[in-house]
Amino acid sequence: MPRAIELMKSAYRDLSAGNVDSPLRTVLVNDNGTVLYKPAYSDDAGIFCVKVVSVFPANVEKGLPVTPGIIVVNSAETGMPLAILEAGYLTSLRTGAATGIATEVLAPQESKAGALFGTGGQARHQLEAMLCARPFEKIYIFSRKPEKAIQFCEDNAELAGSLGNCELVANPDRAVLKECDVITTVTTSPVAVFGDDEISDTVHINAIGSLGKDRTEVSAETLLRSEVIVDQRAACLVEAGEICLMRDAGLIGEDYHPMEIGAIIAGDSILTDRTKPTVFKSVGNAAQDLVCSAEIYRHTEANNLGVDAEL
Amino acid sequence: MPRAIELMKSAYRDLSAGNVDSPLRTVLVNDNGTVLYKPAYSDDAGIFCVKVVSVFPANVEKGLPVTPGIIVVNSAETGMPLAILEAGYLTSLRTGAATGIATEVLAPQESKAGALFGTGGQARHQLEAMLCARPFEKIYIFSRKPEKAIQFCEDNAELAGSLGNCELVANPDRAVLKECDVITTVTTSPVAVFGDDEISDTVHINAIGSLGKDRTEVSAETLLRSEVIVDQRAACLVEAGEICLMRDAGLIGEDYHPMEIGAIIAGDSILTDRTKPTVFKSVGNAAQDLVCSAEIYRHTEANNLGVDAEL
Repeated sequence: MPRAIELMKSAYRDLSAGNVDSPLRTVLVNDNGTVLYKPAYSDDAGIFCVKVVSVFPANVEKGLPVTPGIIVVNSAETGMPLAILEAGYLTSLRTGAATGIATEVLAPQESKAGALFGTGGQARHQLEAMLCARPFEKIYIFSRKPEKAIQFCEDNAELAGSLGNCELVANPDRAVLKECDVITTVTTSPVAVFGDDEISDTVHINAIGSLGKDRTEVSAETLLRSEVIVDQRAACLVEAGEICLMRDAGLIGEDYHPMEIGAIIAGDSILTDRTKPTVFKSVGNAAQDLVCSAEIYRHTEANNLGVDAEL
Repeated sequence: MPRAIELMKSAYRDLSAGNVDSPLRTVLVNDNGTVLYKPAYSDDAGIFCVKVVSVFPANVEKGLPVTPGIIVVNSAETGMPLAILEAGYLTSLRTGAATGIATEVLAPQESKAGALFGTGGQARHQLEAMLCARPFEKIYIFSRKPEKAIQFCEDNAELAGSLGNCELVANPDRAVLKECDVITTVTTSPVAVFGDDEISDTVHINAIGSLGKDRTEVSAETLLRSEVIVDQRAACLVEAGEICLMRDAGLIGEDYHPMEIGAIIAGDSILTDRTKPTVFKSVGNAAQDLVCSAEIYRHTEANNLGVDAEL
């Protein structure tokens, strides 16, 4: 995770600087689901890659992953196919690392208390990234199903203990949100998972879940009084419910122009007002998959891991 | 090949009927070459597929394929990745099969003499397709390098003999072109490989090679007096040099509207005037890859072929 966070730093910097070629994804649809193709290239990464990821909701009843995916890696020198990577772990890791770098760059230095909403498949990497970024003493775990929060705390107590001696607390009284320095949301909720009156004025929020332009994990009240920072402006303006729903409601104009995290990392944008909340909104970008795929491929090659396949 | 030709019939019919979802390919470029991503889906095929094909000209000096490629197959029911196929053989086969179906549909029934221009990697499948479509007695082989034509005839004499007792003749006098019922061009030539005065008035031409809008294998004179039939109108109007160069020269207008082979197969378009040459121009389409991938995947599964790989 520390290495993945480093990689996200360069991915976001390159993305904001226009050094990553990540064209619009292509989408194929049938009655059962959707397959998305997300290609990307950068000189820095030194590979071409495409993530082929499916979204088939009924898979859950078949005991199959709802979003199975692979990544195809091609050589930057010869175009030859180099590797096929399973994409589920990588996506979860890089999405965690996005929270990691955002927390490193945006959260109060002395963050002691954190909250995590959501205990699904990507929650563990979100937790790990938070722990890598700040010396949390307590992280509060919220889930719609209280027993899932308890299970999550059990499963991850060792991780939290080893990464900075942090205690995980399941299903606390919601009053604790006021003392949280960082809140990460990784849910599928269509509406805000906390009220604007529940949080402190200096909290940093990572809004990572709820894909789609009609879903938001953060209320308009919070967003309007916060500094909103995005992974990629062009994508978030059309894909992030947090922004689209506010625009649809007439709360923001067509000229809404949030900062990009890459520009902050590069020093091209500077956060001056630290007296209001910050919200990092990520919809995910192929640039993140690209840097992680390059690293995993090189590591695999260098250590003779992986399985050779003859075509 | 007979089965591949059958598959092309349904692929082209579905393509013209709008039953194939094959969005514009995505292209990534660096200083060394290009990687193209071509996704496709149809209910009939019962799979999703994407061809990832690279074009790296300097590979020839490295002893590597210039256009290495793979195809990723995903399930139509669950979206799960099912298979990775090598794309070179499949591309050559389906491109041959395109010539096969076009020759079946458009060439004179009693075709006895044929010509093949080009002896590169795809030439054998072109020859095989011609032999499957008509009872040729002689096929004349032309190459810029005469020794390559001789070698090609040697290598393929058995194939030609077994598929209809056809004789292959290398580097004949060009006067034989006048008697040819079918001419297939599969070269990389930037300009027409035969003059309009060299061919008969009832010849059928398959123009399969010379990718790019500034290259043509057939002269404007021939094209203007022929019935031109394309694999996909939208693609050929922007990608086929045969058409683009004529438009650039003002020889045809923006309203140029060639027939699609799929519409002829379906009976929606009918060729009435059989007294002039026909030219089938193909730039290749993901629909072709889709039907072949589906067939190869099913055959592989049914016969326990292929290699299993754990991700």
